[in-house]
Amino acid sequence: MKDRKPIVAQSTAQGTGAIAIIRISGEKAFSVFLNTVVQKERFDSMPPRRISLYTLLDKEKNQILDEVTAIKYKSPRSFTGENMVEIFCHGGTVVIRDIIDSLIRNGAQPAGRGEFTRRALENGKIDLLKAEAIKGIIEGTNEPEVICAQKMYDGKINALIAVKEKMLAIQSDLEAEIEFGEDGYIGDRGKNNLSSLLKEFEKEIQLRKNITNITGGIRIVITGPTNAGKSTLFNRLLGYNRAIVHHDPGTTRDTINERILLNNYEIQLIDSAGLRETNQDVELQGIALTTNAIHAAHLILWVTAANEKISELEKQVFQESIKKKRVLGVINKIDTENGALKERFLSEKGIRHCSISLIEEKNINSLIKMITEEIGVIVSSIELPNILLNKRHEELGRKIVLEMKRAEQEWNRPEIAAHHLKKAQGLIEEIFGKTDNEEILNRIFENFCIGK
Amino acid sequence: MKDRKPIVAQSTAQGTGAIAIIRISGEKAFSVFLNTVVQKERFDSMPPRRISLYTLLDKEKNQILDEVTAIKYKSPRSFTGENMVEIFCHGGTVVIRDIIDSLIRNGAQPAGRGEFTRRALENGKIDLLKAEAIKGIIEGTNEPEVICAQKMYDGKINALIAVKEKMLAIQSDLEAEIEFGEDGYIGDRGKNNLSSLLKEFEKEIQLRKNITNITGGIRIVITGPTNAGKSTLFNRLLGYNRAIVHHDPGTTRDTINERILLNNYEIQLIDSAGLRETNQDVELQGIALTTNAIHAAHLILWVTAANEKISELEKQVFQESIKKKRVLGVINKIDTENGALKERFLSEKGIRHCSISLIEEKNINSLIKMITEEIGVIVSSIELPNILLNKRHEELGRKIVLEMKRAEQEWNRPEIAAHHLKKAQGLIEEIFGKTDNEEILNRIFENFCIGK
Repeated sequence: MKDRKPIVAQSTAQGTGAIAIIRISGEKAFSVFLNTVVQKERFDSMPPRRISLYTLLDKEKNQILDEVTAIKYKSPRSFTGENMVEIFCHGGTVVIRDIIDSLIRNGAQPAGRGEFTRRALENGKIDLLKAEAIKGIIEGTNEPEVICAQKMYDGKINALIAVKEKMLAIQSDLEAEIEFGEDGYIGDRGKNNLSSLLKEFEKEIQLRKNITNITGGIRIVITGPTNAGKSTLFNRLLGYNRAIVHHDPGTTRDTINERILLNNYEIQLIDSAGLRETNQDVELQGIALTTNAIHAAHLILWVTAANEKISELEKQVFQESIKKKRVLGVINKIDTENGALKERFLSEKGIRHCSISLIEEKNINSLIKMITEEIGVIVSSIELPNILLNKRHEELGRKIVLEMKRAEQEWNRPEIAAHHLKKAQGLIEEIFGKTDNEEILNRIFENFCIGK
Repeated sequence: MKDRKPIVAQSTAQGTGAIAIIRISGEKAFSVFLNTVVQKERFDSMPPRRISLYTLLDKEKNQILDEVTAIKYKSPRSFTGENMVEIFCHGGTVVIRDIIDSLIRNGAQPAGRGEFTRRALENGKIDLLKAEAIKGIIEGTNEPEVICAQKMYDGKINALIAVKEKMLAIQSDLEAEIEFGEDGYIGDRGKNNLSSLLKEFEKEIQLRKNITNITGGIRIVITGPTNAGKSTLFNRLLGYNRAIVHHDPGTTRDTINERILLNNYEIQLIDSAGLRETNQDVELQGIALTTNAIHAAHLILWVTAANEKISELEKQVFQESIKKKRVLGVINKIDTENGALKERFLSEKGIRHCSISLIEEKNINSLIKMITEEIGVIVSSIELPNILLNKRHEELGRKIVLEMKRAEQEWNRPEIAAHHLKKAQGLIEEIFGKTDNEEILNRIFENFCIGK
């Protein structure tokens, strides 16, 4: 373990909260803390991992900084493997910066991005996959991303280990090929195994798309005949959401787009004004299928009015879109008519539906519950990758596929094939993060946040 | 202590950080936590105030939520006085919401604004002044605000106690007046004391202005002759700052305005293009004094070029503005000439100054150090209130002043004067927060953040 200057940083999110955490790590972490704390004996005599109350004092200004709680961790039994102090202070920006400033004046230096995690890595407390997992858990904006990160965090990387072994087996078959030449006692085993491993990686890259596909939120498109209440529903759902995550100003002319949280799911809610019946024979298929929003949707809310007859639009749109997309029927305006006709129609088509009145605020909660259930089904049915668990792995995966394809093409020139397999194998090792390459490590850690 | 449903909330700032804290408080806090934790025996047997590692599991989905550390606090030895669990989880938004959701499904309810602090208040762990102090420490955007809050937090409210006693003494003098009438053995003592207490409150209200005056940041105005490098300096200081706090788009035509952090001080940096010499005899006084920015400035950076002669503008502006404001001279362009002439001129006027070259990046750090020192002097020379320690107190203070003035005016009708003194006294009690008035408490706590 290297003897390094103690580092300090806020480890909780920026902004105002009730409490914030400031961490100090390094051989001299305790003495840095002792320089600012009033109750020095208490801290000295306190066993590790026990929280206690302290007063922090700015000695220069003789000014109380804050009343805090703090925990000490003795090397090597800490996150970084070094001596550490975790300070729990009041979460005001002035208080936090004054405490950090005081700790810096007392011998700490500001931590760089991911420096705590990097020290943990370099002190052998975690490996690179676990470091990346922590980053993924923190920064993941949806369940599938976080689940992938948690797999790494929990060390559930059997698939990755298996892939590595398969690659070694293929290589040894190829080496036998090179040695024994046309005696060929192995036959096509190596080549077949390579081809199947290649397929495995190609599938993984496909599965990665499932995740990037929901990174901006589950896309829910509101559509249906005009005057059924689409925009009212859109606004009602916006009003329901706990927090508008992001306002997209540059939306297309045809759709309005808002990112919201709906029962904790990140949603991209799209109000498509696209489907209009200009006349009865309008070419529905064209409209429905060219609408990008519907194409890219995870869920379609088909809004229709209880007091309107079933339109040609409805009859035909379901033929086209139900096959591919989940559709939830929303029968609005049950204040005017009970909507039994539409209910029967949707039931016949096998479409789940909910009868509501937006004007009278009837059944809105039931609708939201159904939408949430649909999202739950969508999210849980997303097939997740097993090998390529984050973006860095995906990029390496693409390179691995290229090298394996070259090896496959050159199989009859085994020395050249072996060269490409060797490169592919190195790239697999790189996923494991078995690297001392400073540049690779720097690239990984420069994307970490400060305080981690 | 009332038996209440356990409440749960994130207690750290919203957003992404390395770690987040989730708190549970209530009689059943432990069982809520136990419902989500894998290592139940470990938690049961762990003594309070000791941090340990746990795995949180979503039982419904049979999915690991996170690997966390947690501390339990046994009633009444906790912040709220109830049983509490503090969970330190990875600070990702998905992880945090999934954990909180799981805790809610296991019997907790989402905490309202300031509900933890309110429970602490209602369980007698803290008084209202301390509750307000916590809010002030968290939300204060500058040192003076936070120092006022810390006074309350530390119970340093002697001045407030003294005021209350003075008021009681005045009242008892007035009552004697009523009882003994024109025997007047007290003379003017009561009236004189009232008048002096009134002055004390009026001064406090004045002192509150010192704080509101810097709430948007210490105002630094960059000014000086044209072409001396004002805008370049402005941009250079913007580039230096660690974070642009806020961008004010709606600024006046004459000034550009940015809020920045300069060595941890919140600054409103104003680039005033206002001072121009249209001709030699331009009426400087008019320009200088009508410039609102200079009027409202805490510090003026007077930028002048080393290679230009001392202008009439400079000679006259100092007569007018130095008297009232702190001015720091910035002699730019020392790459062209050494600036000795200007240095001598500024020294003669008794103005601190710094010679720099913005083009060659010379002495910029010295300048920033000098600016920081100036700000330090400005901030530390701000006289702080002793009685009215936050906005609520200030509002009560204004009402107290009105009642005392009425009492003063009506001194010769002692029954009426007594009525107003009684009201003033009640308002002083209200500062102490000795109230069971639900409405007052609600009003105070509705401004708290969730999680506090």
